[in-house]
Amino acid sequence: MAIKKYAVNPEDDLGFGTQAVRQRIINRDGSINVKRLGIPFFSTTNTYHRLITMKWSSFWVTVITAYIIVNVFFALLYLFIGIQNLHGTGDNNVSNHFLNAFFFSAQTLSTVGYGHISPAGNVANWVAAFESMIGLLAFALATGLLYGRFSRPSAKFVFSENLLIAPYAATGGRGLMFRLANMRLNILLDVAIEVTFSFNEIVDGKTVRRFYTLPLERTRVSILTLSWTVVHPLTEDSPLYSITAEDMKSSNATFNILIQAFDDTFSQTVHSRTSYQHDEIIWGAKFVPAFSHDQDGQVQLHLGKISDYTDVELPIIG
Amino acid sequence: MAIKKYAVNPEDDLGFGTQAVRQRIINRDGSINVKRLGIPFFSTTNTYHRLITMKWSSFWVTVITAYIIVNVFFALLYLFIGIQNLHGTGDNNVSNHFLNAFFFSAQTLSTVGYGHISPAGNVANWVAAFESMIGLLAFALATGLLYGRFSRPSAKFVFSENLLIAPYAATGGRGLMFRLANMRLNILLDVAIEVTFSFNEIVDGKTVRRFYTLPLERTRVSILTLSWTVVHPLTEDSPLYSITAEDMKSSNATFNILIQAFDDTFSQTVHSRTSYQHDEIIWGAKFVPAFSHDQDGQVQLHLGKISDYTDVELPIIG
Amino acid sequence: MAIKKYAVNPEDDLGFGTQAVRQRIINRDGSINVKRLGIPFFSTTNTYHRLITMKWSSFWVTVITAYIIVNVFFALLYLFIGIQNLHGTGDNNVSNHFLNAFFFSAQTLSTVGYGHISPAGNVANWVAAFESMIGLLAFALATGLLYGRFSRPSAKFVFSENLLIAPYAATGGRGLMFRLANMRLNILLDVAIEVTFSFNEIVDGKTVRRFYTLPLERTRVSILTLSWTVVHPLTEDSPLYSITAEDMKSSNATFNILIQAFDDTFSQTVHSRTSYQHDEIIWGAKFVPAFSHDQDGQVQLHLGKISDYTDVELPIIG
Amino acid sequence: MAIKKYAVNPEDDLGFGTQAVRQRIINRDGSINVKRLGIPFFSTTNTYHRLITMKWSSFWVTVITAYIIVNVFFALLYLFIGIQNLHGTGDNNVSNHFLNAFFFSAQTLSTVGYGHISPAGNVANWVAAFESMIGLLAFALATGLLYGRFSRPSAKFVFSENLLIAPYAATGGRGLMFRLANMRLNILLDVAIEVTFSFNEIVDGKTVRRFYTLPLERTRVSILTLSWTVVHPLTEDSPLYSITAEDMKSSNATFNILIQAFDDTFSQTVHSRTSYQHDEIIWGAKFVPAFSHDQDGQVQLHLGKISDYTDVELPIIG
Repeated sequence: MAIKKYAVNPEDDLGFGTQAVRQRIINRDGSINVKRLGIPFFSTTNTYHRLITMKWSSFWVTVITAYIIVNVFFALLYLFIGIQNLHGTGDNNVSNHFLNAFFFSAQTLSTVGYGHISPAGNVANWVAAFESMIGLLAFALATGLLYGRFSRPSAKFVFSENLLIAPYAATGGRGLMFRLANMRLNILLDVAIEVTFSFNEIVDGKTVRRFYTLPLERTRVSILTLSWTVVHPLTEDSPLYSITAEDMKSSNATFNILIQAFDDTFSQTVHSRTSYQHDEIIWGAKFVPAFSHDQDGQVQLHLGKISDYTDVELPIIG
Repeated sequence: MAIKKYAVNPEDDLGFGTQAVRQRIINRDGSINVKRLGIPFFSTTNTYHRLITMKWSSFWVTVITAYIIVNVFFALLYLFIGIQNLHGTGDNNVSNHFLNAFFFSAQTLSTVGYGHISPAGNVANWVAAFESMIGLLAFALATGLLYGRFSRPSAKFVFSENLLIAPYAATGGRGLMFRLANMRLNILLDVAIEVTFSFNEIVDGKTVRRFYTLPLERTRVSILTLSWTVVHPLTEDSPLYSITAEDMKSSNATFNILIQAFDDTFSQTVHSRTSYQHDEIIWGAKFVPAFSHDQDGQVQLHLGKISDYTDVELPIIG
Repeated sequence: MAIKKYAVNPEDDLGFGTQAVRQRIINRDGSINVKRLGIPFFSTTNTYHRLITMKWSSFWVTVITAYIIVNVFFALLYLFIGIQNLHGTGDNNVSNHFLNAFFFSAQTLSTVGYGHISPAGNVANWVAAFESMIGLLAFALATGLLYGRFSRPSAKFVFSENLLIAPYAATGGRGLMFRLANMRLNILLDVAIEVTFSFNEIVDGKTVRRFYTLPLERTRVSILTLSWTVVHPLTEDSPLYSITAEDMKSSNATFNILIQAFDDTFSQTVHSRTSYQHDEIIWGAKFVPAFSHDQDGQVQLHLGKISDYTDVELPIIG
Repeated sequence: MAIKKYAVNPEDDLGFGTQAVRQRIINRDGSINVKRLGIPFFSTTNTYHRLITMKWSSFWVTVITAYIIVNVFFALLYLFIGIQNLHGTGDNNVSNHFLNAFFFSAQTLSTVGYGHISPAGNVANWVAAFESMIGLLAFALATGLLYGRFSRPSAKFVFSENLLIAPYAATGGRGLMFRLANMRLNILLDVAIEVTFSFNEIVDGKTVRRFYTLPLERTRVSILTLSWTVVHPLTEDSPLYSITAEDMKSSNATFNILIQAFDDTFSQTVHSRTSYQHDEIIWGAKFVPAFSHDQDGQVQLHLGKISDYTDVELPIIG
């Protein structure tokens, strides 16, 4: 086994703990592969979280369903009060009482209030007054959510599909490399990265998960305008110095990546995550440049070429 | 007395000062047990603070009460102008003049404006024009508050009910431990913790409150996916090295805990607080693992088991 | 002159530069006493800044004035199109054509749309369709501003009226002290303070303004629950060690104070500023405690007593 | 060549990489001169980015166009259902069926709902109910964008037009200087600056871009109330110690400037960028003071004079 033993440094495990894992904790898309049981379903924050992070299609279904349910509720209420308390339904060319009440409810809830149907009598007027208040608040909530979803700051990086073991000129040895670029129009500043290598080790016959924060050639760029090739130099100090593909597989090696950046459009800090597993590593390859110059001399970055690599021979190590 | 004397480090007291206390300063739920007298009641920020942090039931009562009060005010204004200046009330099936004015006001304030009742004459038209403007602004304020309450970032941790004095494998001695986990769906990054031990000491016959920031096994996790057992190793350097339960009680020992994290859904920094008192410490116990693997190998964290512990024998100390 | 000479450290001047000043740069209330000429009046950010920071009375005058101006504009437009294109004005009991157009405009802008007056013909319909669109956008902007004003995070501290030269027990010598507390209901965390002493010095016959960041007993509290007495110990290392009231006056001594904190309600960083001048210093006084315990043992902080001091004798210095 | 050779420090390149450039990477106005190909056009974040950062004229054209398109769509829908299902069009004095449907649609979408035209029959009522819901959501989105544009925090600095090589009193030698001031009414705190010198170097016959973060007299001011003259002292340690204008030109020298500050109005961190090229450097000049005192002794800063300099003789070096 060529992974160096080292004293446990609890500051390195990122909060994952030391239990052996059979699956990734951080998925490729950055989501977390841990199920928490016992989270309260009806908490304001969790409801907001679900409504903000659900897919757009689910969001629209939720909004429209809620609109219909509220209108059905008020329509039934108007029917209960008596359809004769809604004046003007006779000219609405809708014979069904429930639908007349439903359409009046929709006109009240959305505050469009044409007035060809109007409430009459105390009770219908009270309900309509209350419904229009609820309508304004509910729509504001829905539109707040809509805008919240739309304007939520989030980083979106394109990562190279593979982690490469490549020649590393600065040391004359090897380096572990992956590449990333910003997929958004937003300008990212103060981009910081943290790469953690985790693997299984057998201690006293028990499998224990180990974590090691890898030193990088650089851990921060001031402004991310082009692609960034993140490099962990495989020097003798690295626990991965003489590791083989076989070692990686048998120890279920995983590389967890956390990125933090400042988004200039939103003026907020954003985060992103991904991971690489042992079967996503290419031994002996280097990245092909992903940028070019156009005829005016302007630099062009091709986001589709971020993953492109070419095979090379690796320097022999001690 | 087995609490070590040490030079006063004013940077340690967190801002609590040195007066002796008979009660917790930070409550278990994170609220602050200090009453400040002389805070101005009618400041914009304090009003906002109250409306954002009050219970949901109080919030709804406030909104509905305000809606009714404003409508009553305008209804009285329309009555004063003269009910004959509201056309169409005859068909409204409401015999009470005040209620007719009230319902017209509600239709104006919410901008539903059916039009079966409409203002006539200069004065009624001016009032209605003004009321609809106020209505739009007031409802926007109410819905801003509603959305502000809904989307306010806040951390919610579940803490173990007890602080344990447990065997600590890394040193072969004892450790002071508590456990926490994230109760929200939100992903928490860069979670940092600060634990302050405070106790009464008698200096020149006067009781003085002392504060000591406890060194921890680790003070930060990059991402909080599972539970985190926070450990203060009871080494010889610790002021708590040879402390007894008796000492804790007589000195009114309290442990104040401050947590800071970055919330990935809200892209904002959130804080949480709690405290443990001497009577919430279990001597000779260790936490039972709170996670398991399901049949697919996915890690499952049981939030309900965060407080679970089992009794163990403590190592003897010098 | 008892102010120690020291090498100029450009990192100390806070950005004020070295020109001699006859007035405070930072006022007591935290505003900046510098007039910048040439700031563009019609920039979006500056307009927003003015609308957010103006007094409430000015804000309401601005909103109502804008509402009237826009309605006057559209009323004139409807008059120009011809009042006969607004149906229903005959029953409105308003004989003035302009006012009829004005009220219709208000009903359209606020989208209340009773409908007892309604547009007829192509042109009036186009204008009304456009006005209702403008109305929705303008009201949303106004209400956004309203909510933005209401929810803007801002720190509000009460500072002691005077800076005291008091006995300082920790060194047995003197200390320069002032006291502050949080005037808001919000909980403030991670409160950091920076105190800069500035004074005039004559260099080569020219008066130059000097700045010196004073070392403090503590520069940060984790949580500000009570009052905080900020202390600069007047040790032999301090440039103020043997300063006299006379020196302070002749050198136009000023103390600038910058505070930064994290607001737990808004989850945002807030700042505050103030300053003390030589004539606000009390020589030989100490603060009277501003807190007490009520019958239940709860700590009570009296914000009105923050400035209270009592005269004491100062220790003699070398 | 008088630019000192130095070991490549990858932490210095700000993320620009080492490819030779023929153009600035950061433009004078702070925009980035890199074209990224392959960014998905229809992503929520990018759409938001475009709508928030586009010019005001483009924004208004987009909003009005969208309003018309949506109304045309619904007008066609009402025509398809049959114009006879819109009651009251006969009195609208609009003979064109499409326009009648269009105006009704506008009244529904904006929820003004006069009611002189009203839907009749099941289908028209369903469409109107749906349209008013869409209207509320769409307008809220538009107004959210409007307010988002209005309230977006952004720094706006005025930079001196030229970079000066000036005498620098503190060392008795030369300094590289530029000047900046805040163009906004907002107060800026904690202003930090980073200046990177980049140039072409020929390594093994290949042109390589080098980056060097310049040490500054000061890198941070606590509060930016006046102008700030940023100085890189041209000491013997500087790679620019004996550089000539000729060297600057032949190596395509560029100075990239990144600024970060905390905006007190928005309570948010803001950034700004600019750059200077070799042809914007003045050799032998110093800045003229840009401030004065008015009759009351108040400091006045003239933003229009930030670029003003006067020629001086440079001290001879080495």
